[in-house]
Amino acid sequence: MNISIINVGNEVIEGDVLNSNAQFLSERLFEIGHKVLFHCVCRDDEEEILSVINFYSKKSDMVILTGGLGPTQDDMTKEVLAKYLNISLVPNNKVLDDIKEKFKFYNKEMTENNIKQSYVIEGAKILFNEKGTAPGFLIERNECSYILLPGPPRELKYLFDKYIIDFFIKKIGKNKLKSEIIKIANVGESTVETRIKDLIDKENIYVATYAKLGEVKVKISTLENHGKILKVKNEIIKRFKDNIVGFNEKENSQALCEYLIKEGLSISTAESCTGGLIAYNIVKNSGVSSIFSGSFVTYSNEMKMKILNVKKETLDNYGAVSPEVAKEMLIGLEKRTNSDILVAVTGIAGPNGGSDEKPVGLVYIGVKILDDICILENKFRGNRLEIQERTSRTVFDIIYKKLVIDKLL
Amino acid sequence: MNISIINVGNEVIEGDVLNSNAQFLSERLFEIGHKVLFHCVCRDDEEEILSVINFYSKKSDMVILTGGLGPTQDDMTKEVLAKYLNISLVPNNKVLDDIKEKFKFYNKEMTENNIKQSYVIEGAKILFNEKGTAPGFLIERNECSYILLPGPPRELKYLFDKYIIDFFIKKIGKNKLKSEIIKIANVGESTVETRIKDLIDKENIYVATYAKLGEVKVKISTLENHGKILKVKNEIIKRFKDNIVGFNEKENSQALCEYLIKEGLSISTAESCTGGLIAYNIVKNSGVSSIFSGSFVTYSNEMKMKILNVKKETLDNYGAVSPEVAKEMLIGLEKRTNSDILVAVTGIAGPNGGSDEKPVGLVYIGVKILDDICILENKFRGNRLEIQERTSRTVFDIIYKKLVIDKLL
Repeated sequence: MNISIINVGNEVIEGDVLNSNAQFLSERLFEIGHKVLFHCVCRDDEEEILSVINFYSKKSDMVILTGGLGPTQDDMTKEVLAKYLNISLVPNNKVLDDIKEKFKFYNKEMTENNIKQSYVIEGAKILFNEKGTAPGFLIERNECSYILLPGPPRELKYLFDKYIIDFFIKKIGKNKLKSEIIKIANVGESTVETRIKDLIDKENIYVATYAKLGEVKVKISTLENHGKILKVKNEIIKRFKDNIVGFNEKENSQALCEYLIKEGLSISTAESCTGGLIAYNIVKNSGVSSIFSGSFVTYSNEMKMKILNVKKETLDNYGAVSPEVAKEMLIGLEKRTNSDILVAVTGIAGPNGGSDEKPVGLVYIGVKILDDICILENKFRGNRLEIQERTSRTVFDIIYKKLVIDKLL
Repeated sequence: MNISIINVGNEVIEGDVLNSNAQFLSERLFEIGHKVLFHCVCRDDEEEILSVINFYSKKSDMVILTGGLGPTQDDMTKEVLAKYLNISLVPNNKVLDDIKEKFKFYNKEMTENNIKQSYVIEGAKILFNEKGTAPGFLIERNECSYILLPGPPRELKYLFDKYIIDFFIKKIGKNKLKSEIIKIANVGESTVETRIKDLIDKENIYVATYAKLGEVKVKISTLENHGKILKVKNEIIKRFKDNIVGFNEKENSQALCEYLIKEGLSISTAESCTGGLIAYNIVKNSGVSSIFSGSFVTYSNEMKMKILNVKKETLDNYGAVSPEVAKEMLIGLEKRTNSDILVAVTGIAGPNGGSDEKPVGLVYIGVKILDDICILENKFRGNRLEIQERTSRTVFDIIYKKLVIDKLL
């Protein structure tokens, strides 16, 4: 199906909220072989909502509308769509009871404006919302069909996964899109494209490259023969062997944690310029208590000495941002946690604190995997947050490549 | 000006990349009093790009196009716009030299496909891009005007702030939008709306509410008299006094760090279920070395005992997720860092590990501000990441309210 996604809401159009719903829906729909043609965001304004429903309905087999199903005056998506389709809104007691129950459960007062959420589009399939008070709707038609979903991401995701995904899987039948991913680190996007240009067979295989903070993701897709994309994949692997860090959409932090849990290998970190980001990228994943006991954010020199036994002479002679300090942090960390895998990071995230000799972006990453120590010097580009993100990403890339990817190559 | 933003790129339409550019542009344009009507994302496809340029040009005084200015085959935004406007693309030596120089500086090979980036739209103002190889363009016309900006966020932001913002400020003249922000914690959005409904004077003042992980932001705006919105603001403050946690767009983590740096007050954290997130939300901010020495991520019971001297009996008698353990973590942290402000967090982020007595989402937050200790029990809703985010947000809200906001009320 050719799908357009319309998000209604001033909060998105005014930049208060990032449009993560469009991303979520696109990702899911692409995975199961549907094609999203357009995202559109418009204001809480009847005329403007009508104009984009009209424009995108003519270009699509399905329009998904999100947001504007709430109880407040600005919420009018359901009303406008019903008007456009010339269908009535009717009160629904089951939805009303459901809303009342939720207010009771959370021990909150139900305000008058919540009642309008119990009106449903006549003839539409009602998507009961366990995570909130606004139900969603599915309206199937011969021309363009419509789905309405509430704006809060957790409600939208819940309704999509519970009611909608099966609908789309049925529509696509067997023509499922097959795709393969290759993640390449430390090579620019245009270089990657130039070096794989000859592999792109425009007729049947679609190769796209996406760059993101030091990583280029190559996605090879086809609606036809899976064997064909595997051949392309293997050729790309041959050409970029030393820089390949992954084969799926998952962040390597997640992929690594899953691997460590499976293998029973423990990990801990000692962080300076990343301030806990690497530890948090571990603890984001559930089930890590079996492999993660804790981490140390030793931001000051004093903490590096007190907690990790970094020597004063080392700090004085080489400075806090040096391979020598990274190494002593590793050793100190090992004494504290005795983990199988140790990470120590020290660097200059900026924007201040850089010098000609040690510029902003200089980061030493120390990694000890079982008995193997390495200290890597990195010069990362970008602002403070980007340098911190790149550092964290590189840490997980290094370890995941060593433990998992290199064994597959 | 009425503005539409079109982002071109399969990576956004397929959900590989979040559309942060639209958010950035919208936020900046709203701040200086311009109105964004629509966001649109479309694929790297000539016909589709043309159709949305045509649709949105008719609805707007300005269309901003982003993405698709790169060197690869898929990049065609500049070419399609030139075609739509019937203007030629011409080679530009200054841009070409600039690109060559960049490749030299980064010591990278310049591939043939980069040359197409040196073609410019005839008569357009060229926005030289110091952060990348693709220049941007500004095409001013009596009917709809156009701006083209590259897709990578740091390049787009750089060009916008360097060349574009002044253009928009001049256009708006003195009619700058005035707005005030009030951030309210722990009250639902519909309750907030119901309780401020009578204050909304639809004619001249625009009041909008935005909900985000436990916080409702109320934005009061006008193009007229600032005094009028201050009156509304004061009335809202009166009604929600106990729940007000901020008065600007900034995250409280940032606002608090700026305050602590100014006042010379130090802070440190001991974290269990947040795994370093709170520490990282401090270290995200530059200049924190004067107030932040370090933090401890004590995820396991063993680490809580070894590093923070939490007693084994306390863990055995009350469990790791208890006010008693939060308190001992605070005391242990104080011994390690001696900071003015101490934070200790222990909770169940889920999805596993919950029980009837201690459900997922139960989080104890201990805060010591100078000599004042408090331990708060929270029951947060949401998935693992949401519970961690809510915890971190609540920590900064509590401290910032106590140190800054309550003194203003």
